[in-house]
Amino acid sequence: MTSTPIKIFSGSSHPELAKEIADCLGVPLSDMHISRFACGETYAKPMETVRGMDVFVVQTSTSNVNEDLMELFIMLDALKRSFAGKIHVVMPHYAYSRQDRVATPREPISAKLVADLISTAGADHLISMQFHSDQEQGFFNYPVDNVNTNKLFADYFMQKNLQDVVVVSPDAGGAKDAKKFADLIGANLAIIHKTRPAHNESEVTHVVGDVAGKTCIIYDDLIDTAGSVTAGLGALRKMGAVGDVYLAAAHAVFSPPATERLAAAGFKEVVVTNTVPVPPEKQFEGLKVLSVAPLLSKIIQSVHEAKSVTNVLNFN
Amino acid sequence: MTSTPIKIFSGSSHPELAKEIADCLGVPLSDMHISRFACGETYAKPMETVRGMDVFVVQTSTSNVNEDLMELFIMLDALKRSFAGKIHVVMPHYAYSRQDRVATPREPISAKLVADLISTAGADHLISMQFHSDQEQGFFNYPVDNVNTNKLFADYFMQKNLQDVVVVSPDAGGAKDAKKFADLIGANLAIIHKTRPAHNESEVTHVVGDVAGKTCIIYDDLIDTAGSVTAGLGALRKMGAVGDVYLAAAHAVFSPPATERLAAAGFKEVVVTNTVPVPPEKQFEGLKVLSVAPLLSKIIQSVHEAKSVTNVLNFN
Amino acid sequence: MTSTPIKIFSGSSHPELAKEIADCLGVPLSDMHISRFACGETYAKPMETVRGMDVFVVQTSTSNVNEDLMELFIMLDALKRSFAGKIHVVMPHYAYSRQDRVATPREPISAKLVADLISTAGADHLISMQFHSDQEQGFFNYPVDNVNTNKLFADYFMQKNLQDVVVVSPDAGGAKDAKKFADLIGANLAIIHKTRPAHNESEVTHVVGDVAGKTCIIYDDLIDTAGSVTAGLGALRKMGAVGDVYLAAAHAVFSPPATERLAAAGFKEVVVTNTVPVPPEKQFEGLKVLSVAPLLSKIIQSVHEAKSVTNVLNFN
Amino acid sequence: MTSTPIKIFSGSSHPELAKEIADCLGVPLSDMHISRFACGETYAKPMETVRGMDVFVVQTSTSNVNEDLMELFIMLDALKRSFAGKIHVVMPHYAYSRQDRVATPREPISAKLVADLISTAGADHLISMQFHSDQEQGFFNYPVDNVNTNKLFADYFMQKNLQDVVVVSPDAGGAKDAKKFADLIGANLAIIHKTRPAHNESEVTHVVGDVAGKTCIIYDDLIDTAGSVTAGLGALRKMGAVGDVYLAAAHAVFSPPATERLAAAGFKEVVVTNTVPVPPEKQFEGLKVLSVAPLLSKIIQSVHEAKSVTNVLNFN
Amino acid sequence: MTSTPIKIFSGSSHPELAKEIADCLGVPLSDMHISRFACGETYAKPMETVRGMDVFVVQTSTSNVNEDLMELFIMLDALKRSFAGKIHVVMPHYAYSRQDRVATPREPISAKLVADLISTAGADHLISMQFHSDQEQGFFNYPVDNVNTNKLFADYFMQKNLQDVVVVSPDAGGAKDAKKFADLIGANLAIIHKTRPAHNESEVTHVVGDVAGKTCIIYDDLIDTAGSVTAGLGALRKMGAVGDVYLAAAHAVFSPPATERLAAAGFKEVVVTNTVPVPPEKQFEGLKVLSVAPLLSKIIQSVHEAKSVTNVLNFN
Amino acid sequence: MTSTPIKIFSGSSHPELAKEIADCLGVPLSDMHISRFACGETYAKPMETVRGMDVFVVQTSTSNVNEDLMELFIMLDALKRSFAGKIHVVMPHYAYSRQDRVATPREPISAKLVADLISTAGADHLISMQFHSDQEQGFFNYPVDNVNTNKLFADYFMQKNLQDVVVVSPDAGGAKDAKKFADLIGANLAIIHKTRPAHNESEVTHVVGDVAGKTCIIYDDLIDTAGSVTAGLGALRKMGAVGDVYLAAAHAVFSPPATERLAAAGFKEVVVTNTVPVPPEKQFEGLKVLSVAPLLSKIIQSVHEAKSVTNVLNFN
Repeated sequence: MTSTPIKIFSGSSHPELAKEIADCLGVPLSDMHISRFACGETYAKPMETVRGMDVFVVQTSTSNVNEDLMELFIMLDALKRSFAGKIHVVMPHYAYSRQDRVATPREPISAKLVADLISTAGADHLISMQFHSDQEQGFFNYPVDNVNTNKLFADYFMQKNLQDVVVVSPDAGGAKDAKKFADLIGANLAIIHKTRPAHNESEVTHVVGDVAGKTCIIYDDLIDTAGSVTAGLGALRKMGAVGDVYLAAAHAVFSPPATERLAAAGFKEVVVTNTVPVPPEKQFEGLKVLSVAPLLSKIIQSVHEAKSVTNVLNFN
Repeated sequence: MTSTPIKIFSGSSHPELAKEIADCLGVPLSDMHISRFACGETYAKPMETVRGMDVFVVQTSTSNVNEDLMELFIMLDALKRSFAGKIHVVMPHYAYSRQDRVATPREPISAKLVADLISTAGADHLISMQFHSDQEQGFFNYPVDNVNTNKLFADYFMQKNLQDVVVVSPDAGGAKDAKKFADLIGANLAIIHKTRPAHNESEVTHVVGDVAGKTCIIYDDLIDTAGSVTAGLGALRKMGAVGDVYLAAAHAVFSPPATERLAAAGFKEVVVTNTVPVPPEKQFEGLKVLSVAPLLSKIIQSVHEAKSVTNVLNFN
Repeated sequence: MTSTPIKIFSGSSHPELAKEIADCLGVPLSDMHISRFACGETYAKPMETVRGMDVFVVQTSTSNVNEDLMELFIMLDALKRSFAGKIHVVMPHYAYSRQDRVATPREPISAKLVADLISTAGADHLISMQFHSDQEQGFFNYPVDNVNTNKLFADYFMQKNLQDVVVVSPDAGGAKDAKKFADLIGANLAIIHKTRPAHNESEVTHVVGDVAGKTCIIYDDLIDTAGSVTAGLGALRKMGAVGDVYLAAAHAVFSPPATERLAAAGFKEVVVTNTVPVPPEKQFEGLKVLSVAPLLSKIIQSVHEAKSVTNVLNFN
Repeated sequence: MTSTPIKIFSGSSHPELAKEIADCLGVPLSDMHISRFACGETYAKPMETVRGMDVFVVQTSTSNVNEDLMELFIMLDALKRSFAGKIHVVMPHYAYSRQDRVATPREPISAKLVADLISTAGADHLISMQFHSDQEQGFFNYPVDNVNTNKLFADYFMQKNLQDVVVVSPDAGGAKDAKKFADLIGANLAIIHKTRPAHNESEVTHVVGDVAGKTCIIYDDLIDTAGSVTAGLGALRKMGAVGDVYLAAAHAVFSPPATERLAAAGFKEVVVTNTVPVPPEKQFEGLKVLSVAPLLSKIIQSVHEAKSVTNVLNFN
Repeated sequence: MTSTPIKIFSGSSHPELAKEIADCLGVPLSDMHISRFACGETYAKPMETVRGMDVFVVQTSTSNVNEDLMELFIMLDALKRSFAGKIHVVMPHYAYSRQDRVATPREPISAKLVADLISTAGADHLISMQFHSDQEQGFFNYPVDNVNTNKLFADYFMQKNLQDVVVVSPDAGGAKDAKKFADLIGANLAIIHKTRPAHNESEVTHVVGDVAGKTCIIYDDLIDTAGSVTAGLGALRKMGAVGDVYLAAAHAVFSPPATERLAAAGFKEVVVTNTVPVPPEKQFEGLKVLSVAPLLSKIIQSVHEAKSVTNVLNFN
Repeated sequence: MTSTPIKIFSGSSHPELAKEIADCLGVPLSDMHISRFACGETYAKPMETVRGMDVFVVQTSTSNVNEDLMELFIMLDALKRSFAGKIHVVMPHYAYSRQDRVATPREPISAKLVADLISTAGADHLISMQFHSDQEQGFFNYPVDNVNTNKLFADYFMQKNLQDVVVVSPDAGGAKDAKKFADLIGANLAIIHKTRPAHNESEVTHVVGDVAGKTCIIYDDLIDTAGSVTAGLGALRKMGAVGDVYLAAAHAVFSPPATERLAAAGFKEVVVTNTVPVPPEKQFEGLKVLSVAPLLSKIIQSVHEAKSVTNVLNFN
C-alpha cells in the first residue's frame, strides 16, 4: 500500500496548514496551479502527474466559504479527470456544518448538500474535525473521518493543573459535548440557557449548575461573533464565578466583532485550534492557537498505509 | 392532483393505527396479503390494483423491528413492481433512530442504513415522528417529513393548568429538545446527568437546575427500559421535588422491565403516544396514550393534495 | 494481491460453517461483536481493524431469515464505514431464492430485492451456492459467484457404485437441473408432475420416465417441509421402484414437519449439505451431511488471490 | 391521466405490427424519421412534439438484432432529449432472451445487459412477451410487463376440440412451461430429452411420458432453426405417436434452414405469433400466425390509463 | 398540465431579469428569502409553499459566479426538501461555459462539473442561452434547453437595412457560429486569426476574407475584457474596412477594462443582451442591450404547458 | 502496479490493429471467443482468466458500427462478470462522434449516448483518438483519453520539407483544428466555406485566405464520402493553387464512392491513419496510411503503469 506515492495539494483557503501537514509527513507540498480569470471564474489544475496516486487536498472553510467550496470542486474535477487513484479531501472546518437540519419550514440542509456536492465533484473520502453534530457522519454516502478535538483540548488543560473546574456549555444544545469534555478532564458540568419570560420582556440568561467560586471553562465547537460566550461570561460572573474563566472552542471562525469582543471580555485565555486560519489582525492578547497539523498528518499517514486510525481518533 | 385515488395499506406491525388513520381520512384500508412460509420467509402482495396511485404504507417499528423492516421492504418491492404512482412509507417510530452516529470505533450508523434500504426497496417518501435527532433528516436522499410531537404534548399539558412547572431532561443529550418543550409551555428547565467521580467509585446522578418544590415533567423522545427515568425520579425527589412528577415521551418502546418499573415508580402520570402499539399487557395505572392518527392523517391528506403541511408541522 | 490480509467474520446464523471455512484457510476467525438491545434492535461492529482489507462475512439464511438479513446489513454498514477494502458476502443458502419471478399479479421478486439490499448495505461481491434458478445471477448489478453443488453430490454418489440409476426430478421445474446431475453420473432421467384431472377431483401424481426396478435418486435444490418428496417416493413405489431410493438436495431447510416425515419415509439415505445448519434436533437416522466448507474456502482463496475460480466452479 | 395524448412510434424492425397496434388503439402511427448515413451510422428523430406525452416505441428483435437495438437506443435518446413524458418500449420478442445465465465460465448475461442498456438509453418501462425464462423480470431495475402467450395458444387450440392430447416439451428446460400450457387445455405432459450414452457414442433422444396414439402438441417459447423440434417429431413417431402432431411457439425466429425443415417435417400445423415478422419467403403450407396486436393494444391502453392490467395479463 | 401553479423565484444575481420574466408571464415573483450569516455562509429558503408545483429559479452567472452558484445550490436544496414538483433552473449565461474541454493536461472541464453539481443540488431541467459550444448539451444527464440568440440579433440587424455586410468571427473557433449568423442575414463571412511567425517575434493578426469597404459585424458569443475584439477592429481597419463596424455578442460579461476599451474603440454600436446584468457603471455611449425576457418567458410557458418549444427555439 | 498482468483483447472490427498494438507491447493477444448464432445474436466470452487484471479491449467503429458496438457491449459484460480488474476500451475511431449536439429539433446526441452505453456495459475507461469535437470529453462520466493525431501528421509532413504551405480547413467548423495543425508546422491558414447567395441560386464555394501558388494541405478529422474535399480541391485550383495539394485526415471512413473520388481527384497524396481498417479494395495510388499502434501502445503502457501520459498526449 505504501508503494504508491502520497501527494498533498493545498487550495487557497489555508496554505499554512497544508504546509505544516506536509512537513509533519516529510513530503513536499505538491503544486496546484490556482488562478482567477478576469470574469471571476476560478481555474485550477495540478502541475504534477497524479495518475494512480493517493491524493489529499487540504481546503478548509473560511469566511469566503463559497469561494473555498467552488475552488475545491474544480480542483477535484481536475484531479479526477487526471486519473488520481483515491482523492481525499481534508477540510478541518466543515462548511455549513451548522445548517444540519430543517429547523423552520422549507429550510435547506446545507451540510448534507455540501457532502453530496463534494462527492459529485470527485472526492472518495473526507477528513474533517469536530462536526457541529456527530450525526453529520450519516450525511455521507462515502467514507468520512470526523476527528474529535476533545483530547487536544484535554491535553492542553490537564497540563495547567487547574483546580475545582467546571465545564460550561454555552447553550442546551452543546450540553452533550461539554459533558464529554468534562468527563475527560474530571470536571463538573454547568449549562447556560436563555428564556424569554413573557412575550414583551427581554431574554434572560440562566446558569444551571454550581459555578460559584469555581474555575470555569466555557466549551463550544466554534466561536462565531462571540456574542453568546461573552454574555455567558457575564452570567457566570453574576452567579459567583469570580475566578479564572477560560474559553475553548475548536473552530476560530471569529466573525466581526469577535476579535474586539474577545479582547475586551476578560477571559483568562481563549483557546482555539488552527482549523480556520487566524490572521494577525484577528489575534489578540490571551489567544492560544493549538495546531491540528500533527493530528491530521497522523491520520493521513494511517489512511495512506491503510492502518487503523482508532488509536488516533478514539479518545472519547 | 386529488383525482388519483389514495390507498392506505398496513403492514403487520400496527394495524390499529393504520385503521385509525384510514378512518380519519374516510377511506377504507386497502388489502395487503401478508403471510409467512414454513421456511420463515415473508410473502406480501397488494390484493388491489395500485397502478398510478398514491400509496401510503403504514409500518412502524416495534420490538420485532427486523421482521417489521423486512416485511416493509417486501411490500415496497411488490408495490413498485405493480406500478404504484408514488409510494409513501408512514413509520411513526423510526427504526434504529438511536444508532445515528459512530460513537465508538467501527460502529454502524444503522439509522442511515435503514433510510437507504427503504429507498432501495422502492419508497419515494417517508413520514415519521420525533426522530432521535433532528439531523437524521439529512440521512435521506429522498423527501422526508419528520413530525414533531412537542405540540401534541404541549396541548395535553396546557389543559392541566399545572403551576410552577420545570421540564427535566433525563440526560445532557436531550437538553435541547426539553428546552424547546419547556419554551412551548412556559416552563423552566433542569437537566439530569451522571458522572463517575473516580475510576472505582459508582456513578452519581446530578440534577442541574432548581427543582425543589416544583411540578416536574421528565421529557424524552422515548421510554425504553425506563431505567434512567425512574432513577431520575429518585434524583428529583432527593433534590426536593416533592410534588407531582410527570413522565412524557413520544415513543412507548417499553422494553422489559419498563412496565413493572413505571407501574411502581410513583409518577403522577406517564404520557406517551401510540407511535408504537401498547398492548394491554404493557399498560398500567396512570398510563395515558395520545393518538397520533389525527395528526398523521392531516399530513397524509396534505401530501396527497400537494398542499403545504407547514400549518400541520410547524409548531416549534 | 496476497499482501493484504484476509479477514473472515461470522454472523450469528452459522458460526460452525464460518469456523470450518477459516480452519480450511488456516486463518483465525475475526471478531465481530453482535448483540441485541432490550428494544429488539441489533448491534454489530467489528472488533478489529479492517481498513483496506479483503473482508469475507459468512451469513447464510436460516428459518430466522429476516433477522439473518438485517444483522448482515448492519454488519456490512459497520464494515463499510470502517473502510474495509473489498467486502464479500458468503451466503451459502441464498435468502428468498424461490421468490424469483412474478408468478401471480402484484408479487414481489424478493430474490432480486435481497440482491439490491445487500449491495446498498455495502457488499461488493456475493458468493452463494445453488440458486433456485441460475437466472438469479442476472439479478445482481455486482459480481456474484453461484457455486453449483452438482459435483459435490456426484462425487459422493459415484463412490457408492450404484447400478441402474435413475435421477428423478420431483417436479417439472427441476427437470433441467436433474438432467444435468443425471448426465454427470451417467444415469437416466424421470420426472414427477402433478395434475388435477378435473375441477372437483383431487390432484394426481404422475411419473414420466421408466423407474421400475431402478435405483432412484430424487434430486432437488432444497428440502423444505419434505411433503412433495415423500409423496414422490410413494409415486415411485407405485410405479415399481422397489429398490433403494435416495434423496439428495443442497439446502437442508427442513421446515416442520420435515424431520418427522423424512425419518419415517423410508429413503435409503437423505443426502444434504451444511449450507444451512442442521442442529441435532433436526437430525435423524439415514441423514448424511456433506460439508461445503472445503469448496467455499478454495473459492475464497482464489478470490483473495485474484486467481481463476473456473477449476473450482466449472464442473457442469 | 387520459388527458395526455398517446403516441405510438415504430422502429424499422416490425412496422406492420406497430401499424396494427395503432389501428387497434384507434390512433395514427406517429412519425419517426429513421435513416442511415453513408458511413453506416443510424440517425433517428421524432417528427412531432412529444413533450410531456406518453410515448410507446414498438421495436422487436429480428435476425438483425444488433441493428434493431442500436436503432432503438438512438430513438430513445432522441425522445428523452425531446422531453417525452414516459417512454415505454414495446419489444414483443425480447432480444438476447436466451442468454440469461452464465452456463459456462466467463459468459455474458446478455439478457440482463440489454435490460440495462435500454434503461440507460432512456426507457422508463418495457412491455415484452414470453421471456425465455420468467426470472428475467428480475433483470429489470425499472417496471416490466412480460406478457404470457399461453392463453393465446390455449384459445386457439381449444377451438379445435382435439381429443386425447399430450403437450410435449422439446427439452427438460421447457418442462415447466409446457406443463402450464397442458394444464390450461387439460392435456397430459411428455418431455423429450437427449443423452449421450458413452463418450464416443452418438446422442440419443428419449421421450419420457406416454405419447402412443395421442395427438401431440410440441410446445416451446420459440422456433429457431427448427432442428430439435423436427428431431422431436421423429422421436414421437418412433414412440408411436402416429396421429396429428402440432408445433406451437410464440416467437417465429425461423433461422435458416427453419422454413425448409418445417415445410418438410410433416407437422399438422405450425402455430406461431407475429412477435417477429414472418415475411412471405419464410411462410409455408400449414403455418398459422396468430396476431399479438389486440393483446398488446389492450395492455398499452391500460398502461396509458393507469388501469390494472391483471385481467389482460393474468391467465396463468 | 396547466392546473399546477407556476412559481418563479429569483436568486440575487439578476433580480431585474427575473422580474421582467414574471411580468411577461403575468405572474408575481415568488418570495425567496436569501441572507448571509456573519460567518459568510449563505442561507436561503422559499417563503411560500412549493409542494407539487412547477418551480423556475432564475439565477445567471455574473462576475460573482462562485457565489451565484453556491446560492443556487442552496436554493435548490431547500426547494427539493420542500417537495417542489419539477425544479427548472433558468441560467441565461451558463457558468464556466468556456471551460468545456481539456485543452492542456490535467485541466478540469468545469462546464461539465457545473452541470453535475446543479443536478446533485436538485434541479430537474436547465434553460440556458448560447452555450460557448453546442456540444455542452451533451454534458447534461438531464433535460436541457440551450436557447440560441442568433435570431434575436438577426431581427435587430435586419431592421437596420445595412448594405454590403460581412460577418466577422474574431477567431477561428467562432467561425462556425459566425457563418450561421451570416447565413441568417444574408451576409458574407470573414475570420480573424493570429499567428506567431517565429518564436521570438510578436503575434500577427490576420484577416481571412474580403472586408475592404464593407459594413462589418464582429460576432461572438460573449464579450469578456474586449481585448481581442478591439484588436480585431484595428485589423479590420488596416484591411480597408473603413465603414461602420458593429460588435454583437450575447453575453455582456464586461470584465475590466472592457467598458473603457469599448467606449473608446470606435464601434458604430455594441449590441448585447441582458443575460448578464449590465449595471449603469458598465454602460457607455453606443451600447444597445436587447432583452431576452420575452423569449425566456415564452419558453417557460411552453415548458409549463408541456408544449413544443420548437417554434420558439428553432430559428437556426 | 506493473505486477498485475496486462491483457489485450480484440473485437472483430480491427484485429490487425489489436495485433500490432500487442506486438508493440511485447505481449500476446489474449483469446476472445466471438461467434454469431443462427438467429443473428452475438456471443462472446474471454477464453482466459481475467480476474483482477488490467484488461484492454480494442474495438474501433467501422461501417458496421452498430454490430461493432453491440459486440463490444457483450464483450464488456462478459469481462465484468468475470471479475476483470479495470476494463479499458480502446476505440481509436469513436462511434457516432459527429452526432455531438442537437442541431435541429428533437435530434439525439448519439455521441453522448454511446459514452453512457459503454459505461453501462462495464468499461472503466476509454481511449480514443481525435474526437470530432474536443468537448466530447465532457460527455464521459468516467475517465477518457482523447489522443490528438495532429503531431503524427506534423511529424510526417515536416519530413517532406514542403515550402510555402497553407493548411486549408474544408469548412468553417474545422477552422480551429486546422489552425492548430498549421501552427504546429509553421504554415498559414485558409478556410473553405459555402454559401447560397439567394434562395433559388446554387451553393457557391468560397476560399477565405490566400492560396495562390501555395502548397496546400486540406486538413480534416475524417474522410467520409470525400465529396466536400474533392469539391474543395476544385475551389483551390480555381483560386490559383496550382501546386501540390495534399489531403490529410485521421479517420479513413471511406464510404462509397470515396475511393473512386479520391483515386480520381488529383491529390498529391492522401494521408490517413489506421484508426479504421483500410482493406485492399479501398486502397488506391497515392494513399498513405500512418499507423497509430506505436502511439496507442505507449499510452496503454503508461495507463497500465499509472504513469503520466502527458509526454505522449501533449503535443498541442
